[in-house]
Amino acid sequence: MLRSRASGFAMDLRTTPLLTDLYQLNMLQAYLEHGESKIAVFEFFVRELPPQRGFLIAAGLEQVLEYLQVLRFSPSELDWLKEKGDFSSSFLDYLASFRFTGDVEAMAEGTAFFAQEPILRVTAPLMEAQLVETRIINILHFESLIASKAARMVLAAPGKTLVDFGLRRAHGAEAGLLAARASYLAGFSGTATLAAQKIYGIPTYGTMAHSFIQAFDDEVHAFEVFAQARPKNVILLIDTYDTEVAAKKIVKLAPRLNAKGIQIRGVRIDSGDIIALSKRVRRILDDGGLSKVTIFASGGLDETFLMAAENAKAPINGFGIGTSLTTSSDVPALDCAYKLQEYAGLPRRKRSTGKATWPGRKQVWRRYASDGHMIGDTLSLESDSQDGIPLLKQVMRRGERVEPHATLDMARSHAAEELKRLPTALRKLQAGAIYPVVVADALREIASTFDRQQSISADSAS
Amino acid sequence: MLRSRASGFAMDLRTTPLLTDLYQLNMLQAYLEHGESKIAVFEFFVRELPPQRGFLIAAGLEQVLEYLQVLRFSPSELDWLKEKGDFSSSFLDYLASFRFTGDVEAMAEGTAFFAQEPILRVTAPLMEAQLVETRIINILHFESLIASKAARMVLAAPGKTLVDFGLRRAHGAEAGLLAARASYLAGFSGTATLAAQKIYGIPTYGTMAHSFIQAFDDEVHAFEVFAQARPKNVILLIDTYDTEVAAKKIVKLAPRLNAKGIQIRGVRIDSGDIIALSKRVRRILDDGGLSKVTIFASGGLDETFLMAAENAKAPINGFGIGTSLTTSSDVPALDCAYKLQEYAGLPRRKRSTGKATWPGRKQVWRRYASDGHMIGDTLSLESDSQDGIPLLKQVMRRGERVEPHATLDMARSHAAEELKRLPTALRKLQAGAIYPVVVADALREIASTFDRQQSISADSAS
Repeated sequence: MLRSRASGFAMDLRTTPLLTDLYQLNMLQAYLEHGESKIAVFEFFVRELPPQRGFLIAAGLEQVLEYLQVLRFSPSELDWLKEKGDFSSSFLDYLASFRFTGDVEAMAEGTAFFAQEPILRVTAPLMEAQLVETRIINILHFESLIASKAARMVLAAPGKTLVDFGLRRAHGAEAGLLAARASYLAGFSGTATLAAQKIYGIPTYGTMAHSFIQAFDDEVHAFEVFAQARPKNVILLIDTYDTEVAAKKIVKLAPRLNAKGIQIRGVRIDSGDIIALSKRVRRILDDGGLSKVTIFASGGLDETFLMAAENAKAPINGFGIGTSLTTSSDVPALDCAYKLQEYAGLPRRKRSTGKATWPGRKQVWRRYASDGHMIGDTLSLESDSQDGIPLLKQVMRRGERVEPHATLDMARSHAAEELKRLPTALRKLQAGAIYPVVVADALREIASTFDRQQSISADSAS
Repeated sequence: MLRSRASGFAMDLRTTPLLTDLYQLNMLQAYLEHGESKIAVFEFFVRELPPQRGFLIAAGLEQVLEYLQVLRFSPSELDWLKEKGDFSSSFLDYLASFRFTGDVEAMAEGTAFFAQEPILRVTAPLMEAQLVETRIINILHFESLIASKAARMVLAAPGKTLVDFGLRRAHGAEAGLLAARASYLAGFSGTATLAAQKIYGIPTYGTMAHSFIQAFDDEVHAFEVFAQARPKNVILLIDTYDTEVAAKKIVKLAPRLNAKGIQIRGVRIDSGDIIALSKRVRRILDDGGLSKVTIFASGGLDETFLMAAENAKAPINGFGIGTSLTTSSDVPALDCAYKLQEYAGLPRRKRSTGKATWPGRKQVWRRYASDGHMIGDTLSLESDSQDGIPLLKQVMRRGERVEPHATLDMARSHAAEELKRLPTALRKLQAGAIYPVVVADALREIASTFDRQQSISADSAS
């Protein structure tokens, strides 16, 4: 059985063109037969911010560009599509030579953005721009979702070490990997996920699990064995049986380990009333002469907890954040879209109830106060210059990346800058403050012109 | 830049042992140095059901077994770990020959399960059972989460065609793929995700996007071009501008297409008040002689909508479900764990506040009423036979799968059976009904014996 699935395993799920909706191929075949190969402009944006988010952080551009660069139909994928029997041989020939040859403009990763603002624009022959829709949304949605969630945590725990512990409850393999990347980009110190270090160079952090303690008959014995095996990075998990009792055991153990040249660096608390326990453990450690031993907390934490710990002055040096981060548990999805805004030189608009879009190629202009804080954006047609700094820049030209392009560390520095520049009201976790995004007059004008034309066409049909 | 990442792209993220938490390797090295290689028993279970779920559906076993079978450290992964400099050469030698050689017992995919019931048990040398923790949780958690969400939809819309439309907002590539699998397993008719058909053989469904309509100056022209390109499966999207106007256009178009031998199979509505629109569109179609044209709905739907549509007798034949399905948006994570329950022949128990576990190797026994409905489960030690059918069966022995093993279609049939056998109260979407799971006396007894022993050890330490 496994062998028969070998072809599935052999393809890289992250870059296969089959990781798309069937309807993309249906539409492409219709476009091909009808000769619809003119230039299309699609933009990715979030329609509305969820009530729990005052801003979002753009992330995922790097993965989108890698995808566009390597996108090919492999011989085995083409054979499989042929076997399916739904597609014409001229269409399969087209797919065999498929390459993405378009342009991409985008906001830099790490940029704060708001509702209706495009963070990425694809300008390409219609079929190319259409085929890539599903995966572009899949990447940008998830990484921006997680970067935005992580940014809230970074704001809630200034100066603290925040580590992604969430691979196990992330939604599958790639979610775990990309959540490590997006949270690091947004200001986390690192991740527990080893593959994220190998692939993206993100620092990894790791301590020990309860099972390690449980595998030994005696808790102190478990501590000792672990410390001797990992003498440079001894962080001991103390909540398996009784947290305060274990903290006292640590105080007794420390001199014995010291005699062997091993310092205990920290303890981790993973359950119970963590804020109260951190204070009691701190006192036990300090009274035992272990004031340099740090306290690391984990176990179902989120930004609300971080804020509470901050307010309670809990003596916690670092936090491992899992499920709430990697699933963005309070807001597990954003209302985003990748929409056709122009085709064959003419603006296009979707008018579906509650889902109308702003037509045309657009630019976002951001204005700053003299102290550096953002004060407002203007959404305009690209050609309609406005006050402020334009946020969308070209990152791919005719299928090739525009050099130099941002590294992950550059994106991380940019995100840190952006968080500093956010208006004070948006830096709070509470909902309520709304950042001003103005739609330029000329853009409103072409939208209503488009609507008038469509109404005439609808009247003549009904 | 892309080239330097080639090693990242070359590894299959789904089966690499680096898709794990760093602490697993830290612990493994400590175990190796200390010679801790006795047999460990870990079980995966959900601690508590979320209030919005009366039952869960087990899924993901197939992916876990595939992972365990192919798990190897590749030469490039070993080189990278060596470069990291944190691991001893004897440990790297151990990893080079790492194979999973253990046993696995599990509930069949598609089985309904409840809080505290193990759905999978790993019995293996400690280091093997530990290394695989992260990915086992990552797979079982996500697929069971989605299968459980999908099952609610299947119960809410009996007999209707349900299709997974959620790849774009799923959390990354694998989430999209596995959500297609888990929802099909739970009773969905298929998915829009092409890769899910290639890898798992799941039927795919697809219509057209708004961008297709928008790319043409005239909506009817778009319908015609699409119908001619896909004459066997003409489902037309009618909400781009005005749904009822478009339905009237369909009535006028149908005879023209008929003359060319093309039948319109259905229309899709993706926005607005879908229940009300479906009734008006049905009337327009029926009045126009198109009573065989079906109505397909999509756009932000969930099981609450499905139930409302059912109650309102909305004339909708099928539903495309996206974000709410593939992110399990109301419950994006389950409180699950993979815990050490026995080591070196002795039961183990974690007693952390709110996270205590039932020690020992366990079995779940399910009792049925004479009409076939489930009436209650008993959680016991494996060796302690109880009334009912034991749900955990061996599926892997010494690293090899026990044949024959269930296909996806078998798991899907099993899930359909399970949904029929659920107590009536649990088949409703509302929370409230709690399925009875009894903990057998002998299991309670070893848990308290264990606690007494630990208390003595804690007393002697403090």
